Amino acid sequence: MEQSPIDKLINDISKLPGLGRRSAQRIALFLLKNKDKNLSNLIESLKLSYDKIIECSQCGNIDMIEPCNICTNSKREKSTICIIEDISDLWTIEKLGFYRGLYHVLGGSLSAIQGIGTDELKLEQLLDRIEKNSVKEIILALSTTMEGQTTSYVIADKLEKFSDLKVTRLAQGIPMGGEVHYLDENTLSTAFQSRKKIT
Amino acid sequence: MEQSPIDKLINDISKLPGLGRRSAQRIALFLLKNKDKNLSNLIESLKLSYDKIIECSQCGNIDMIEPCNICTNSKREKSTICIIEDISDLWTIEKLGFYRGLYHVLGGSLSAIQGIGTDELKLEQLLDRIEKNSVKEIILALSTTMEGQTTSYVIADKLEKFSDLKVTRLAQGIPMGGEVHYLDENTLSTAFQSRKKIT
Repeated sequence: MEQSPIDKLINDISKLPGLGRRSAQRIALFLLKNKDKNLSNLIESLKLSYDKIIECSQCGNIDMIEPCNICTNSKREKSTICIIEDISDLWTIEKLGFYRGLYHVLGGSLSAIQGIGTDELKLEQLLDRIEKNSVKEIILALSTTMEGQTTSYVIADKLEKFSDLKVTRLAQGIPMGGEVHYLDENTLSTAFQSRKKIT
Repeated sequence: MEQSPIDKLINDISKLPGLGRRSAQRIALFLLKNKDKNLSNLIESLKLSYDKIIECSQCGNIDMIEPCNICTNSKREKSTICIIEDISDLWTIEKLGFYRGLYHVLGGSLSAIQGIGTDELKLEQLLDRIEKNSVKEIILALSTTMEGQTTSYVIADKLEKFSDLKVTRLAQGIPMGGEVHYLDENTLSTAFQSRKKIT
C-alpha cells in the first residue's frame, strides 16, 4: 500500500539527524497546522538553499560562490591550512575570529564502523593543494576521539614527504574552566604528560 | 545586512518545535552536504504535503479529503465525539484501534500564558456539531494538567444545556505498570479518592 503524504512527511522528517519519530510528528503537525505560513516558508527557504548554496571545490566549505569566500579572500594567509572534520568546525573556529589561514574540510574522520576510509576523506585533494600552493603549515584540528586521533596520525604520515612543511595539532589538556577532580582519566594523564614549564 | 541563505536556512529550521540552534545547524549541514538527495527529497515531500493535506472543517483532523476519512466513515459511531487537544492525540487513540466514534480537535487547551482563550478552541463549532447531529456522548480526553482540567470543566459547563447529553472524562488514577512508591502526590490522592469497589 502506498504511504499517505502525512506518513511520508513524518518519515522523511524523522530521517534528519537527531530526530526520532516523536519529534518528527511534532514538527510535521507544526508545519501542517499553519500551512500557508510555516510550511510554505520552510519550502521557500529550502528551495533558496538548493539554488544558491554550493560546495567549494578547493576546501569543501559551503558558500554562494565557488571557490568560497574564505579561499578567495586576499587577506587570508594562503600558506596555512587548518584540517577539520566538518563544516560546523569551520563555523566554530570562524566565530572566534583569530584564525586567518585557509581550511580543508575532510567530511568526517576515518571510521571502520561507518565505512569511512582514506578515499572518502578528500586526502588526495589535500596533497594536491599542498603541492600546488606554497603551503607552510598544516594545523590538524580534529576531534580527540579514537577516530579523530587515528585520522590525524594517518594524515601526518602522508605529509611526511613534504620535508619543509610544518605539521601541528591543537594542544590537548585540561579545558579552560575545568575542575581537576571532574576530569576523565585520559584528559588528566594527557595533561600530565604534556605539562609545560611556567615561564 | 541581508541574511545569507545558509543563515536563513539554519534560522528557519531552528524555529521548528523542539529544535535549537545546534540541532538546526546539524540538520542544515546534513541537507546541504548531499543536496540532490537529502535536500531535494525533503523539498518534494513538503510540497506534496502542502498540496495534498487539508484540515477537516468538521473535526479539525488533517487528511487528504474533506471531511476527513474518520468523519465520512459510515462504520464510525456518529453519536459519540471524543474531545482532544491535538491531532497527535487522535493518532495515539487511533493506534489503539478500539475507539469507533468521532473526534473533535480543540487545537490546544485554555492557557492564559499562551493566550489561548475559549475563542481559539473551536468550542462554537463543537456546540454546533452537537446541536445539528444526534450526539449522545461527549468523551473529554484532555491532559490532566492544570490547563487540560480547566478546559474540561469549561467545556462540561457549556454542555450542561444539552440535557440528554452524557458527558464523560477519561478515568484518572495509577497508570498501568505504575509502582505506588514512585507516584506523585496528586496521582496517588486522586487514585485514593476515585477508588473502586472490587467486584
